[in-house]
Amino acid sequence: MTLESGGFFSYDLGSCKKLFNLECDVKPVRLAILGLGTVGGGALKLLKENAAEIKRRTGREIEITHVGTRRPRPDLDLPESVKQSADLMDIVRQPDVDVVVEVMGGIHPAYEVIMEAMKHGKHIVTANKALLAEHGNELFKAAEDNAVQIAYEAAVAGGIPIIKVIREGLAANKIEWLAGIINGTGNFILSEMREKGRAFEDVLKEAQELGYAEADPTFDVEGIDAAHKLTILASCAFGIPLQFDKVFTEGIGKVTAQDVKYAEDLGFRIKHLGIARRTDAGIELRVHPTLIPDDQLIANVNGVKNAVLVQANAVGPTLYYGAGAGAGPTASAVVADVVDIVRDIIYTEDGAGTIPQLAFEALSDLPILSREQMTTGYYIRINAEDQMGVLADVTTILSRAGISIDAIMQQPRLSKDLIPIVILTDPIVESKMDAALSQIQALPVIHGEIVRIRLESLDN
Amino acid sequence: MTLESGGFFSYDLGSCKKLFNLECDVKPVRLAILGLGTVGGGALKLLKENAAEIKRRTGREIEITHVGTRRPRPDLDLPESVKQSADLMDIVRQPDVDVVVEVMGGIHPAYEVIMEAMKHGKHIVTANKALLAEHGNELFKAAEDNAVQIAYEAAVAGGIPIIKVIREGLAANKIEWLAGIINGTGNFILSEMREKGRAFEDVLKEAQELGYAEADPTFDVEGIDAAHKLTILASCAFGIPLQFDKVFTEGIGKVTAQDVKYAEDLGFRIKHLGIARRTDAGIELRVHPTLIPDDQLIANVNGVKNAVLVQANAVGPTLYYGAGAGAGPTASAVVADVVDIVRDIIYTEDGAGTIPQLAFEALSDLPILSREQMTTGYYIRINAEDQMGVLADVTTILSRAGISIDAIMQQPRLSKDLIPIVILTDPIVESKMDAALSQIQALPVIHGEIVRIRLESLDN
Repeated sequence: MTLESGGFFSYDLGSCKKLFNLECDVKPVRLAILGLGTVGGGALKLLKENAAEIKRRTGREIEITHVGTRRPRPDLDLPESVKQSADLMDIVRQPDVDVVVEVMGGIHPAYEVIMEAMKHGKHIVTANKALLAEHGNELFKAAEDNAVQIAYEAAVAGGIPIIKVIREGLAANKIEWLAGIINGTGNFILSEMREKGRAFEDVLKEAQELGYAEADPTFDVEGIDAAHKLTILASCAFGIPLQFDKVFTEGIGKVTAQDVKYAEDLGFRIKHLGIARRTDAGIELRVHPTLIPDDQLIANVNGVKNAVLVQANAVGPTLYYGAGAGAGPTASAVVADVVDIVRDIIYTEDGAGTIPQLAFEALSDLPILSREQMTTGYYIRINAEDQMGVLADVTTILSRAGISIDAIMQQPRLSKDLIPIVILTDPIVESKMDAALSQIQALPVIHGEIVRIRLESLDN
Repeated sequence: MTLESGGFFSYDLGSCKKLFNLECDVKPVRLAILGLGTVGGGALKLLKENAAEIKRRTGREIEITHVGTRRPRPDLDLPESVKQSADLMDIVRQPDVDVVVEVMGGIHPAYEVIMEAMKHGKHIVTANKALLAEHGNELFKAAEDNAVQIAYEAAVAGGIPIIKVIREGLAANKIEWLAGIINGTGNFILSEMREKGRAFEDVLKEAQELGYAEADPTFDVEGIDAAHKLTILASCAFGIPLQFDKVFTEGIGKVTAQDVKYAEDLGFRIKHLGIARRTDAGIELRVHPTLIPDDQLIANVNGVKNAVLVQANAVGPTLYYGAGAGAGPTASAVVADVVDIVRDIIYTEDGAGTIPQLAFEALSDLPILSREQMTTGYYIRINAEDQMGVLADVTTILSRAGISIDAIMQQPRLSKDLIPIVILTDPIVESKMDAALSQIQALPVIHGEIVRIRLESLDN
């Protein structure tokens, strides 16, 4: 509600209905959707299919006035009133747009288009994790300067409302750590390797055929996509700037069926986790294959599904599970953001919402730890000659480095003279493990490269 | 921000900071906490312990000005500035209270105190599921009339932010059904029965000793507590008035270790679920022991933990897991509601928030189905004489009633002449199952009462 000079009420912001219990002649909230791929098409379909339910939730119509696409999509059956154009810069300057939904992906021109849209007072909804993780600090600053909001629920874990949970639902807590399966492709590959004893390359090929993995699977397999999402999650959890370049990232390409099997024998599953942890020294941000106990709920999240486990000081552990990708789930998150903005437009003065962009009014400069400073448990696999004293040599090195052994498993001989030895350790700072492993690696009885996979009990 | 007659800004609502980027001299938001039991004490502790983190989230101090309690609690170490009184009606009329946190429980005098508080313009945060389920419609109406909000995240599933997820996170969806483990005591009992083969009474006694179950365990064991919570969840999911009296409720007192074992042999677990489902004919609201497939994530939620599985048309299935009770988790939800209200006080005109109380601006009059109209699968256990033709008689009756059999398991003889027969059926409307079971019960070869436990695949 705005008070105009003559003392009349202008109903543009629509809050009159709530304040005075009047039925106002309220305008629809107008969207421009940029990008008509899987997510954009999904959002259009959802807005049409659930229009009545969404209207019943908000009391306000949502109208699509523009779509930005290089290829017209006659198959989408858009109403004639929707203007289609490939000139995205022109679309975001139009006066009949309140909210710009950016679902085209990629850094450029998404960055420039969003910046331009905000200059013109448009709120932004985006699913673009790469853009936010790498340029979010500038974008959120510009949002504040322009009194608009950037909503990004769809950028992390698809349809799971994990951003809302962390920014709002757990707002009473000090969040201690979170661990997430936040890349469906990687989880599909690891699940198949475990369930069917298949090799990495074999499952990757199938994932590509099924459309779960891109032709160039680097982003998924190397953990870059997960690192983008972890960057965003960590900022919301701890109130720190986005620092993608400081995430330690290790992919799943070196995980073998053999290690998956040994882990299982020891009561663990290997999952590709994004982990953010607050320690006294600073914040750990890391993405890597991780052994976790098989009786943990998150260890039983299989296939392309995502899940995020959050440990917070008042509520303890909570877990959020669902589809992390796909047209419907991603559109669910995109349109939930639109609904939030519609409600903010109705009930707040500038529509810029009530929640700080990165969950905190004041961001913290907590340092991000280097890999060497991080602390985790370890799964170590060594191929050693079958000689007296090997185990004594290895355990002595670990013990002198202050590394406590949790379990040792000597496996049946693989080749003529080599026996695989698997060791699980308690948590230890990585620099100490580095030093111990180079000493072990240097032993003449050790053959091949030592396998190290991190291990988390997830129980504190 | 309010515009005063002389053209000056009044900073009471604090939104000036956001609009004009000014540092305003903002007042703390002032709380009265009514009830200093487990939850009230937990909320006080949390507000103290996490004060810095919460301030960093909201930019605003939260100050406790009053506590309402019959017994003073010197152990809580309250600052001298906090006024303690047993006169709750007096507290909620005080001008130095913005938000009333009702955590005393019970219907009376909670109802009267909340009504009085709202008349005096106070926002309400409550953990009182019984009160909301049974009197929520009047309370929410009064909240609207007084332009205040009633926040109730803590009323369902403790620290899991399930109300926020359903009201906001899944707002783009048409919710099809939800199924929740929403009573920790019941889940603890069923988990112990399965893991250790123990009898119901035996575990109940232990739960009482551990403090999980009350001396009078009726509310937990009979499902009344779960029915209260389901009432609230269903209203948020479907946008319907609260209709506790229409929930079909069956407790866990008749579940035997024998049935838990047979279910497990067939690949199922028995959980006490609250289920709300939208069908073409209306809404099913039911609380009962339920067989669910053991590979479902929710089947692996054990002990006192809670979880809610939500099936929605865009996102598909999502699951939310965590602690459903206890001082810390419940306080987490209570204080998250306080944080929401603080943000609403800062950024909205009347502080009444942007979200409709029951998730929808317009409630629907969808009918609630009677038990006889509900549709579920079934686990049936019959004790029959070991005679030729028994199975043929039973299956003929089921087949004539249009009931499709999914599995049959004949168990080893229990007593001299009786054999237990277990049958799993596909979903069927309950009235048909009633009719078929009375025919089977009437067969002379059937001894004792037929056991029927509902079964849900949870996969659509």
